[in-house]
Amino acid sequence: MTPVDSFADFICELDKLKAVKRKITLPADNNREENSAEHSWHVALMASMLSQYAAKPIDIQRVIQMILIHDVVEIDAGDMFAFNTQQDHAAQAEKEMAAAKRIFGLLPPPLDETMLQLWLEFEDAATPDAEFAKAMDRVLPVFQNMNAKGGSWATHKISRQQIEKRNAHLRTCAPKLWDYVNEQLDIAVENAWLVDSTTR
Amino acid sequence: MTPVDSFADFICELDKLKAVKRKITLPADNNREENSAEHSWHVALMASMLSQYAAKPIDIQRVIQMILIHDVVEIDAGDMFAFNTQQDHAAQAEKEMAAAKRIFGLLPPPLDETMLQLWLEFEDAATPDAEFAKAMDRVLPVFQNMNAKGGSWATHKISRQQIEKRNAHLRTCAPKLWDYVNEQLDIAVENAWLVDSTTR
Repeated sequence: MTPVDSFADFICELDKLKAVKRKITLPADNNREENSAEHSWHVALMASMLSQYAAKPIDIQRVIQMILIHDVVEIDAGDMFAFNTQQDHAAQAEKEMAAAKRIFGLLPPPLDETMLQLWLEFEDAATPDAEFAKAMDRVLPVFQNMNAKGGSWATHKISRQQIEKRNAHLRTCAPKLWDYVNEQLDIAVENAWLVDSTTR
Repeated sequence: MTPVDSFADFICELDKLKAVKRKITLPADNNREENSAEHSWHVALMASMLSQYAAKPIDIQRVIQMILIHDVVEIDAGDMFAFNTQQDHAAQAEKEMAAAKRIFGLLPPPLDETMLQLWLEFEDAATPDAEFAKAMDRVLPVFQNMNAKGGSWATHKISRQQIEKRNAHLRTCAPKLWDYVNEQLDIAVENAWLVDSTTR
């Protein structure tokens, strides 16, 4: 059996994800920026509640495992704001790949390779499990920003069309959630929490 | 099918766990206090890595689900420091039960009742799944405090015997982890990160 000691570096490394800040702010905690560790918890718990909306068969255990590890690469690569057009996406992808190899490489075999492959599967979002996991990661800010009357959308002047595009995975992987998101985006535009770019 | 809308209150409520502070501090983030949301993520991910050490058959999906929800009651009841002898444990248990009913009650049926029962199972720690989940919650600070050269143990003058007692579930549910913890606690005493109360 693998010695327990061989897990210690990975377990302790994870503490660093708690220092990676996202663009979303938390009204429940003096509007501080959310970090990627607590975000990962929130997505995982939400996904376990919403799995009934998956249109294709999914293995919710794999989905949750993917969600738990999906942001770990940000320990080295940082969080890139989804709507930042200035950043170099290819360079970021390269940084994330190097990070995945280093961080999952802290695990003993065969888990190191299993987790790297699972992270790559999440990134590609080409399997039903990964597509659902990615859709969950992207839909949570819809709930959060609606609850915060626009929240980070309003701050960064995001358009309805940007959010719709970002949540497009839902159309096939969870159509009921897709409908819900579109209703919410309509409300957001009515309240000027989102810009409607077709009318600009 | 349950309307998606009926999940929104619960999903948004979870944001509040990010404001609940624990006694442990994070060297990786300027020694700020850890919150219970990011802690829950860390325990869940660690548990999925360490499940191979479970001595009894466990359903890791249920274990992870328990871990994801185990601290949600702290939204109302707050986090009680494990070694605080001044606090009223019966009053805290009562507050937590009321919190569980209110917060899981935000979910549509049958999930409201399923999650309440799962949380109660975790609290009792009488099934193999719940025992392992609770052991994971309690062993993570051992990794964190060893990595921080004593961390919150040193700050609060905790004894080896207190940590040993708190991790006693491991003895039956994951003996290899129990042995590891004891080796670590010996090192901690040698370094004066933990007091040895038998020699006082």
